[in-house]
Amino acid sequence: MDTMRWKDGSLILLDQTKLPVKMMYITCTRWNEVRDAIRILAVRGAPAIGVAAAYGMVLAAYELLKNNHTITTSDYIADLQRISKKMDAARPTAVNLHWALSQVMTTVNHMTAATAWEITKVLEKQAIAMQHEDVSINTALSTYGADELLKYTNKPLTILTHCNAGALATAGVGTALGVIRALHKKNRIRMVYADETRPLLQGARLTATELMSDGIPVTLITDNMAAWVMKTKGVDAVIVGADRITGNGDTANKIGTYGVSLLARAHHIPFYVAAPVSTFDLTLKTGTEIPIEERNPDEVRCIGEVAISLKNASVFNPAFDVTPHENIKAIFTELGVLQNPDSYTISKFFKQKEVL
Amino acid sequence: MDTMRWKDGSLILLDQTKLPVKMMYITCTRWNEVRDAIRILAVRGAPAIGVAAAYGMVLAAYELLKNNHTITTSDYIADLQRISKKMDAARPTAVNLHWALSQVMTTVNHMTAATAWEITKVLEKQAIAMQHEDVSINTALSTYGADELLKYTNKPLTILTHCNAGALATAGVGTALGVIRALHKKNRIRMVYADETRPLLQGARLTATELMSDGIPVTLITDNMAAWVMKTKGVDAVIVGADRITGNGDTANKIGTYGVSLLARAHHIPFYVAAPVSTFDLTLKTGTEIPIEERNPDEVRCIGEVAISLKNASVFNPAFDVTPHENIKAIFTELGVLQNPDSYTISKFFKQKEVL
Repeated sequence: MDTMRWKDGSLILLDQTKLPVKMMYITCTRWNEVRDAIRILAVRGAPAIGVAAAYGMVLAAYELLKNNHTITTSDYIADLQRISKKMDAARPTAVNLHWALSQVMTTVNHMTAATAWEITKVLEKQAIAMQHEDVSINTALSTYGADELLKYTNKPLTILTHCNAGALATAGVGTALGVIRALHKKNRIRMVYADETRPLLQGARLTATELMSDGIPVTLITDNMAAWVMKTKGVDAVIVGADRITGNGDTANKIGTYGVSLLARAHHIPFYVAAPVSTFDLTLKTGTEIPIEERNPDEVRCIGEVAISLKNASVFNPAFDVTPHENIKAIFTELGVLQNPDSYTISKFFKQKEVL
Repeated sequence: MDTMRWKDGSLILLDQTKLPVKMMYITCTRWNEVRDAIRILAVRGAPAIGVAAAYGMVLAAYELLKNNHTITTSDYIADLQRISKKMDAARPTAVNLHWALSQVMTTVNHMTAATAWEITKVLEKQAIAMQHEDVSINTALSTYGADELLKYTNKPLTILTHCNAGALATAGVGTALGVIRALHKKNRIRMVYADETRPLLQGARLTATELMSDGIPVTLITDNMAAWVMKTKGVDAVIVGADRITGNGDTANKIGTYGVSLLARAHHIPFYVAAPVSTFDLTLKTGTEIPIEERNPDEVRCIGEVAISLKNASVFNPAFDVTPHENIKAIFTELGVLQNPDSYTISKFFKQKEVL
């Protein structure tokens, strides 16, 4: 199943809210359809929403041209800037959305001498390149991650993961699940435990489904079983994705990740983050600065159409939490493995890699 | 809502699998209907299933009399013994079920000189007494628990609880929720966070509903939010119920409790167990000896009728886990507060109280 496809000027998204029961696609021909798809999590996962947003901006650019054939470059740029801000507001926590939109707007702002049509064509190429790049980023970080894990043992590994950091969350093989796929290719996966990941059940609906379709052994558990699995099933490592990593290594990821990191620590199980470099937000020093999205309480009160509590029950529904860097043994990136993330190691890592 | 009522020789049970959407009652006139109600969790909670099983044995006794008016006492006792074993097998982890059945069979075995009819009448009185006793046990341990918690602060408390150890799990005000009710009566509850408690959602369906109907402030969260709530919402204490406590204080309770105890420890939040003395199983030295019930994988794969994963997904579905005694600050019982439970303190506690 393709997470997203750019075809004849439309963005076709797999509607992940319906999986695994139904496989349905959403065809977006307008930028606000992409924004809405991001909002309702039809497309989700930090890298995937970055690429989707870039395509959304291409749709916006075509819409501007269509609505006004003689639009001036400056009006066109001003409109794209305005739309970019609206797109950026679709989800506040994952920085990849913001990162992708910044890439788009940097391109736009460097082309003030070009026509709106010329800029639009460049944006389309850029979005396609971004999607291709995400594929190679996934592959690179997965290889680094698998090699790192295999340094410590000769036996097949039991891995626990939370939420979905897989092909469905990216343009490629995934981040956390990319590492798992790379391990599986080397016959080094004994079992993957997938937390179901309430409220939206990305683990049950997406991760278990993805791994099963690849023939990778996976056992689905409810989130509250993770500790008991760690205690009784010999978990060798936890690997998760990330939505934003600050300058000191504090990592925002799907709600529940922080708890899993504490449970891993209590069981002396190494906890790894797999994420592209675009997930780093070095403008923020620590995790306390990351905005945490709170979503509709009905996500907790209901599962699908089924009410599981009184309709007027008070609910707290943060979509993310922040794992402190002390709980993270290493971050797998496309540039290599960042060991013991903190302000010093992160700053050194990026200086060595001469990026950011 | 009454959890259970004995009326005209029938046991009327509130069907807790349907709450809070529907309030329906199951009328049991045969012992195997009680066993089935226990199995499907129509009646659940360690103290409640103990009392229900005692009533189930009364129904069995009446059935024996009805089927054979001239049954001999020895045949009657042998049949009850056989039925008691079947009832006991309905759920393996909670020891209160076993405890209640032992009480019943002890009574029976002391009355070999009586007629089956006479024994039946005594069993009926005993079951009714057991239900009344559970009410006073709940009240006593709740008062002890509330007083203990109020020793440490003058402010209203924020409490986190897991699963349902409330009126619906007992014959009275509940154990963990009994303590919360006692605190609320003294205006000392700021907020209760209720873990929804997958897979069967007793927190969402029962705990939130119970507390709301009593006007106690409660916020429903998914299980994986507990760590983030502890970090960001100033949780003062965790209070849970118990299904079996071994000689060293290791405590079996609803799956997820062990994880919550580790998260509480990581946040320096005291973790309390509220349970009647009948929950102690001093025949077991440590928690590793407790049988852990594993239930139907479809409980994880589906929520109600809604599939949330592929039908053939592999699932691990333990219904309970074991919290090591080191993670428990105190156990609230009807005989008083058992501080820092371990083999020594527990043995001393019961010697002082001259029970067991």
